[in-house]
Amino acid sequence: MTSFDAFDAYVRAREREYIEELKTLVRLPTVSAQQSAIDETARAVLERARRAGLAAESLSVDGGPPTIVGETGRGGRTLLVYDHYDVQPPDPLDEWKTGPFEPTERDGHLFARGVSDNKGNLMARLQAIEAYRATLGELPLRVRVLYEGEEEIGSEHLAEFVKRNADRLRADGCIWEAGYKDAAGRPTVSLGLKGIAYFELRVRGAKQDAHSSVATIIPNAAWRLVWALATLKNDRDEIVIDGLMEAVRKPTADEVRRLEALPYDEEATQRIHGVPRFIRGLTGTPLKLKHFFEPTCTICGLTSGYSGPGSKTVLPAVASAKLDFRLVPDLTPELVERLLRAHLERRGFGDIEVVAMHGERPSRWPADSMPARAAVAACRATYGTDPVVYPLMVGSGPMAQVCDQLGIPVVGFGSGNASSANHAPNENIAIADYVDHIRAFGRFLHAFAGHPLD
Amino acid sequence: MTSFDAFDAYVRAREREYIEELKTLVRLPTVSAQQSAIDETARAVLERARRAGLAAESLSVDGGPPTIVGETGRGGRTLLVYDHYDVQPPDPLDEWKTGPFEPTERDGHLFARGVSDNKGNLMARLQAIEAYRATLGELPLRVRVLYEGEEEIGSEHLAEFVKRNADRLRADGCIWEAGYKDAAGRPTVSLGLKGIAYFELRVRGAKQDAHSSVATIIPNAAWRLVWALATLKNDRDEIVIDGLMEAVRKPTADEVRRLEALPYDEEATQRIHGVPRFIRGLTGTPLKLKHFFEPTCTICGLTSGYSGPGSKTVLPAVASAKLDFRLVPDLTPELVERLLRAHLERRGFGDIEVVAMHGERPSRWPADSMPARAAVAACRATYGTDPVVYPLMVGSGPMAQVCDQLGIPVVGFGSGNASSANHAPNENIAIADYVDHIRAFGRFLHAFAGHPLD
Repeated sequence: MTSFDAFDAYVRAREREYIEELKTLVRLPTVSAQQSAIDETARAVLERARRAGLAAESLSVDGGPPTIVGETGRGGRTLLVYDHYDVQPPDPLDEWKTGPFEPTERDGHLFARGVSDNKGNLMARLQAIEAYRATLGELPLRVRVLYEGEEEIGSEHLAEFVKRNADRLRADGCIWEAGYKDAAGRPTVSLGLKGIAYFELRVRGAKQDAHSSVATIIPNAAWRLVWALATLKNDRDEIVIDGLMEAVRKPTADEVRRLEALPYDEEATQRIHGVPRFIRGLTGTPLKLKHFFEPTCTICGLTSGYSGPGSKTVLPAVASAKLDFRLVPDLTPELVERLLRAHLERRGFGDIEVVAMHGERPSRWPADSMPARAAVAACRATYGTDPVVYPLMVGSGPMAQVCDQLGIPVVGFGSGNASSANHAPNENIAIADYVDHIRAFGRFLHAFAGHPLD
Repeated sequence: MTSFDAFDAYVRAREREYIEELKTLVRLPTVSAQQSAIDETARAVLERARRAGLAAESLSVDGGPPTIVGETGRGGRTLLVYDHYDVQPPDPLDEWKTGPFEPTERDGHLFARGVSDNKGNLMARLQAIEAYRATLGELPLRVRVLYEGEEEIGSEHLAEFVKRNADRLRADGCIWEAGYKDAAGRPTVSLGLKGIAYFELRVRGAKQDAHSSVATIIPNAAWRLVWALATLKNDRDEIVIDGLMEAVRKPTADEVRRLEALPYDEEATQRIHGVPRFIRGLTGTPLKLKHFFEPTCTICGLTSGYSGPGSKTVLPAVASAKLDFRLVPDLTPELVERLLRAHLERRGFGDIEVVAMHGERPSRWPADSMPARAAVAACRATYGTDPVVYPLMVGSGPMAQVCDQLGIPVVGFGSGNASSANHAPNENIAIADYVDHIRAFGRFLHAFAGHPLD
């Protein structure tokens, strides 16, 4: 049995250096929605991968951002590491305690856009590869990496990229970008992702904004948007789009039993989000069933008319809503779009423009796959406790484009925590969790190669 | 009978000078909602009134903006002229063809924020006073002016100002700030104003924005706002706030008969706003009844979550709507606020913060008052046709604070047109209408003083 004592000591000795290196990466404002700092970040990531010993290069397909692929190590098994180097927009800026691209340490945490999602794990895993080599010798497996630059806007070009570069990506298992401690501080491992379908609804009324005194007779785009939205989900949070819930695959009795056993700290989750109760007052198994086995229909943004200080008596000519659906089997982006359009049409809202922005299918993999077993072993060896195994992560990503397309079983774990505030102001990771992910990933490489862990 | 030939010739000879003088005034970005250029504009208006021969001064009450009062002329009758020197915010800026504070002439029209509402009429009336003196001699009546600087944000301090300065403002009649040609190009005269009640609804959900993957279980402020709004007005545009429509005074049989005779160019109005039909497909007397005798409930602004380019998968923690109600008798701002709060409370939306922003009562005056008769005569003499007399203007303003408080009958007419786009991008007046308002106002002074017009 290999001891990881030297590995751990090596990592601990370099903690400050590792964190400073991460800070350099998260200072880059790589907001893919705004096409900001994409090339610069891709170059920095490529160079960093090469310094970690990977034979890496930057490729792309027509219209897509730079995508980094690379390879290192030798062995009978091949692991694919999927991460992305782009981040979400930082809005609302005024809710950040310190600048989103000025990484700041407070109370043992590092705050910046991208530290949790996903530049932190990307960097930690490269640092783990270096530490493994420095303390345990050559990697006992082949590691391939895939770093993309448009995950936060729907990975539009990734399926084509994976298709064209399948030979550089094939593997026996995949580790996905993210993973989090749960609200009680337990490490978690996830076996899949929800899918997503993102739309913008756009209403146009009069040809331009008008004085609100004509609201008696001239249609108001904002009201029309409100009335249309109110037909999609009722105030019990039930999605009432014709046919949508009927297309959701019911959990099996076995899935329900495993879900009943899954620990879920309701009180801590409520505290993190600052809510006194969950939607509909749910608790226990019904809460977990809704969370893991049901889709969502979320207003991510509403815009119409005047939103400045004070008042403006205006009748808005245009109104729009950004809407995302998180998908579970057997929903697909294509099905949701078709149902949404038909639903609106049927209720007289056929004039509302439905812009499909991006979509990803859900992806779910078995609990006894090689990467899942290696992840559980690595977490146990790192944290001294069994991780909580989730049927899927409730977030979304291009897992189907990579793992379903190539037939690679996948698992996710990482350095996040239940308050990491991904996609929100004050995104953060605990510095101790970052170091632990380096330690866990070193062990995961070892276990995935077929070696026992102590 | 006095001939206005010399007066008209004098005005026509100075058309360019008058327009340039107006341009100078509208270049000032006097946005009261943003407290921009208030003092500078008040000084410019005070100075201009003094140049027109008024004994004018700038006064204020605690916390209020400068308010200009002034007096000139001698005679048995006193006329009060009410105008305001502040303007609406110019948003949305990108829909202006030329800058809102860069007055531009195109196709015989002058475009800029405030040309129609209300700096144009303010300036035209001062120019008319000068032209009258230059061509017809001393004014045959006493003219008092009242120029306020917070009309567009609800005239919060005006009632107190009028109370304290009643002796400087008393008059036998009042001319109100605005008036417009109708969609068919007919001059109009109005006998009152609707009232207004403006609110902001604010919803708070989780303590901060969250990743939208938790939308299964964490409440969404945007959805809650949509559900609450949808209880206020249904998609037939019927206000369904408990008790609100029941408080609306039904028009009398006589009012309905006069409304039936009122010309209203539906096709032109539709063309101006770019709509193929009016709300509910209304036409004829039912359309006019809704427009003049019913209140409104208008979403003036909606804001929640992410509204930038591309997509952001965020669960919004806050959402807000700006909402205005146009009031007809017997609605008051206080009653609407009480009904709105009770309605929301009764439907489980008591957590939604209702911020009352400003309110004004409706004001309506008889068609046979001295100022109304003088206005009709002045319009007939200027335009060669009888004006259309409206029971009220569908806009709002502090008419009750001035005219009801002091018991002064009031009338409104002015230089606007049906496409003037008050409160909207590309606000404008026709230059010919501006000159005609100078001509009409000179005649109005004459008629109001008791002299016949030819």
